[in-house]
Amino acid sequence: MIEIKVRTASRVEARSITGEVAQAVKNKEGSAVSLFVPHTTCGLLINEDADPAVIGDILDALNRLVPRSHSYKHAEGNADAHIKSSLIGHSLLVPFSDGSLVLGTWQGIFLMEFDGPRERKVQISVLK
Amino acid sequence: MIEIKVRTASRVEARSITGEVAQAVKNKEGSAVSLFVPHTTCGLLINEDADPAVIGDILDALNRLVPRSHSYKHAEGNADAHIKSSLIGHSLLVPFSDGSLVLGTWQGIFLMEFDGPRERKVQISVLK
Amino acid sequence: MIEIKVRTASRVEARSITGEVAQAVKNKEGSAVSLFVPHTTCGLLINEDADPAVIGDILDALNRLVPRSHSYKHAEGNADAHIKSSLIGHSLLVPFSDGSLVLGTWQGIFLMEFDGPRERKVQISVLK
Repeated sequence: MIEIKVRTASRVEARSITGEVAQAVKNKEGSAVSLFVPHTTCGLLINEDADPAVIGDILDALNRLVPRSHSYKHAEGNADAHIKSSLIGHSLLVPFSDGSLVLGTWQGIFLMEFDGPRERKVQISVLK
Repeated sequence: MIEIKVRTASRVEARSITGEVAQAVKNKEGSAVSLFVPHTTCGLLINEDADPAVIGDILDALNRLVPRSHSYKHAEGNADAHIKSSLIGHSLLVPFSDGSLVLGTWQGIFLMEFDGPRERKVQISVLK
Repeated sequence: MIEIKVRTASRVEARSITGEVAQAVKNKEGSAVSLFVPHTTCGLLINEDADPAVIGDILDALNRLVPRSHSYKHAEGNADAHIKSSLIGHSLLVPFSDGSLVLGTWQGIFLMEFDGPRERKVQISVLK
């Protein structure tokens, strides 16, 4: 298992980690790459990494669906982050071939921070 | 890696691909099948493939949560499709045993088109 | 493939299954654990298993986004459960190392029941 660390800079942020992941698995052997965040207030997402407005719209939509301020029971002020990460998910599986990630033309891999800034870990395994 | 192509016929459509996927992996060896769409405006979903009203209700709910018309920043008119695919996800992992997909009685695998009609690819790997 | 059975007690319920899953894969060899529910009205989620208010807030948010009562087309009275399970997902991939699940400090694995009480199955495979 390979672990990379990502330092986020804001409470809510979509950080492209495609380059770091590609570098971490470069020339390894296997047929898929498993990505996992061992956290409960951030997630992993694949979406467009060309026009940054796309990820902005995704974050805005999550904020409309799950507002930060609401009468949540969890008293730490980050209940919305737990809910948003539940909708986005904490794991991803990306095809892998000839030592490289097989991503679509417009796809990037994002760490979706919902309760930063923090140092986050991404755990990477290459599956046979 | 096996790739199948799916031509969708509408802007929004749930296309059952269970049969094509089962055929593509038939008699291969492994313990799980990884499915992945290399796109950013369609997704992959498992749900009921018996009463078509179920998938209709799922598509309706996504449209209520993420309307097509809204003041999105992304100017190509398909921001809702990027958001919907983010909620549904771009990958699936299905158990595999004795050369067959292990799906529940009511389960089917759907390609969820949110910005068609287009030709879509599904990348399939059998994991050990 | 290993199968565990989980009997849920309410219509809607988040059942921690971390212990059962850890026991089922203990000392096996592999680099990731695939979990799958062969159902269409329950899901699998990773989130905080310390303060139960967190999972309560997640269930409440899903109920706000997808109310049980609505003019759904599916006539069995559980359309909301199909939609909620579509948002949460039916599979998970958890890193595995030295015979143990690699989960974050606060993470637990939950079976998310949206149409119980029922007996549910969770299918577990250890991937190489």
